[in-house]
Amino acid sequence: MLYIVGLGPGSKDLMTQEALAVIERTHTIVGYATYVRLIEDMLTDKEVVVTGMRGEIDRCKKAIEIAATGKDVAIISSGDAGIYGMAGLALELAGKQEQPIDVKVVPGVTASIAAAAALGAPLMNDFCHISLSDLMTPWDVIVKRLHAAAEADFVTCLYNPRSKGRPNNLRQALDIMLKYKSPDTVVGIGKDVARPKEIEKITTIKDLDETEVNMTTIVIIGNRNTYVENGRMITPRGYTL
Amino acid sequence: MLYIVGLGPGSKDLMTQEALAVIERTHTIVGYATYVRLIEDMLTDKEVVVTGMRGEIDRCKKAIEIAATGKDVAIISSGDAGIYGMAGLALELAGKQEQPIDVKVVPGVTASIAAAAALGAPLMNDFCHISLSDLMTPWDVIVKRLHAAAEADFVTCLYNPRSKGRPNNLRQALDIMLKYKSPDTVVGIGKDVARPKEIEKITTIKDLDETEVNMTTIVIIGNRNTYVENGRMITPRGYTL
Repeated sequence: MLYIVGLGPGSKDLMTQEALAVIERTHTIVGYATYVRLIEDMLTDKEVVVTGMRGEIDRCKKAIEIAATGKDVAIISSGDAGIYGMAGLALELAGKQEQPIDVKVVPGVTASIAAAAALGAPLMNDFCHISLSDLMTPWDVIVKRLHAAAEADFVTCLYNPRSKGRPNNLRQALDIMLKYKSPDTVVGIGKDVARPKEIEKITTIKDLDETEVNMTTIVIIGNRNTYVENGRMITPRGYTL
Repeated sequence: MLYIVGLGPGSKDLMTQEALAVIERTHTIVGYATYVRLIEDMLTDKEVVVTGMRGEIDRCKKAIEIAATGKDVAIISSGDAGIYGMAGLALELAGKQEQPIDVKVVPGVTASIAAAAALGAPLMNDFCHISLSDLMTPWDVIVKRLHAAAEADFVTCLYNPRSKGRPNNLRQALDIMLKYKSPDTVVGIGKDVARPKEIEKITTIKDLDETEVNMTTIVIIGNRNTYVENGRMITPRGYTL
């Protein structure tokens, strides 16, 4: 059996019971070095296959090769494996095997959900997720989605908002938002959520300091009703109080 | 301290370690009867305040009242409390207290993530969440969001897709999707995910049988690249394989 396991955002507190149980009982674990470190203490006496960044295809192929021999193996992903994680790629590659292998996706708490909980309750009304990485999605498709999200007043979670190689994507995304949303729209930032250097910050589109944002940051842009009270970012569900 | 705890979609396997720990150490638990039943075996010797459906405001007020006396209390919600759950309302009401109370939101696995994992990996590219309940969001706002989501080719998760009181909202949502998406677009249905009568089904917009959909169902409409292989619904991330 090939397990694809979402570890949650970082701390073991946010792992599900099932993820924990699968890691405990599976002898062979395949993962990117950063994720392997998240659960290092659980890996004593296990066979661990570590690959580097952008080694996703190799990682999946290795895991599938092992599963094809009849062994249990788990590919680990941070957050939820099915949200910009390893589940899609693993299933795509497993589907190309001549001999089908059993695959189970073990869900996890994705970064936006953990960031939202730390910030308050920004996702209480309709929302969308957009990755600003244009490595695999053309930038014009991303731009179209940013326009659609802003015009229809979705709360918007930005994944992969800014990196050294893509320093300007966040700025461009915010400029698109400003065509439809007020500059005072509340923005929540969750950096390294559920990890040792965790930082949350609540600001507005106009006051956001991009240099505070990196690849381990989730940016949540509120809708027209999102407000701040007692230091919490709240998007009302719509109750009359 | 007032804890707002997401229990995950149903089975205890999908609860986080933190949710489990908070429930275990908190003496007073407040919740809707259906959610209380999900964790019944953990509630021996606890004070449990059960309220009915649509009792959300009362439920939060009671919990806040208890927290204001200095006791620890946990409001439970299924899935993630911050996604169409209790976190927003509890924070809104807590914000109106004269004496501020400490509130902590404990994140959970929301229904769409669990359904996605059971179906395969449909959420591997940009996606949005839209609730088809127009109890608290005007229908014209929901319609605008459906158009935006379909036009920009988001994978779309529909929460509260169909109920006795709203039998036609799903049909109307699918008709909007068909203005932009092919009738053969893959649709995944997850009903009672992680609960005893769990059912998953993969179909298309044109073949979807609405009568199979109720309030405990999540409907996930794929994007133009979503496909089915070995019975799994897969939205490619965009790797060249």
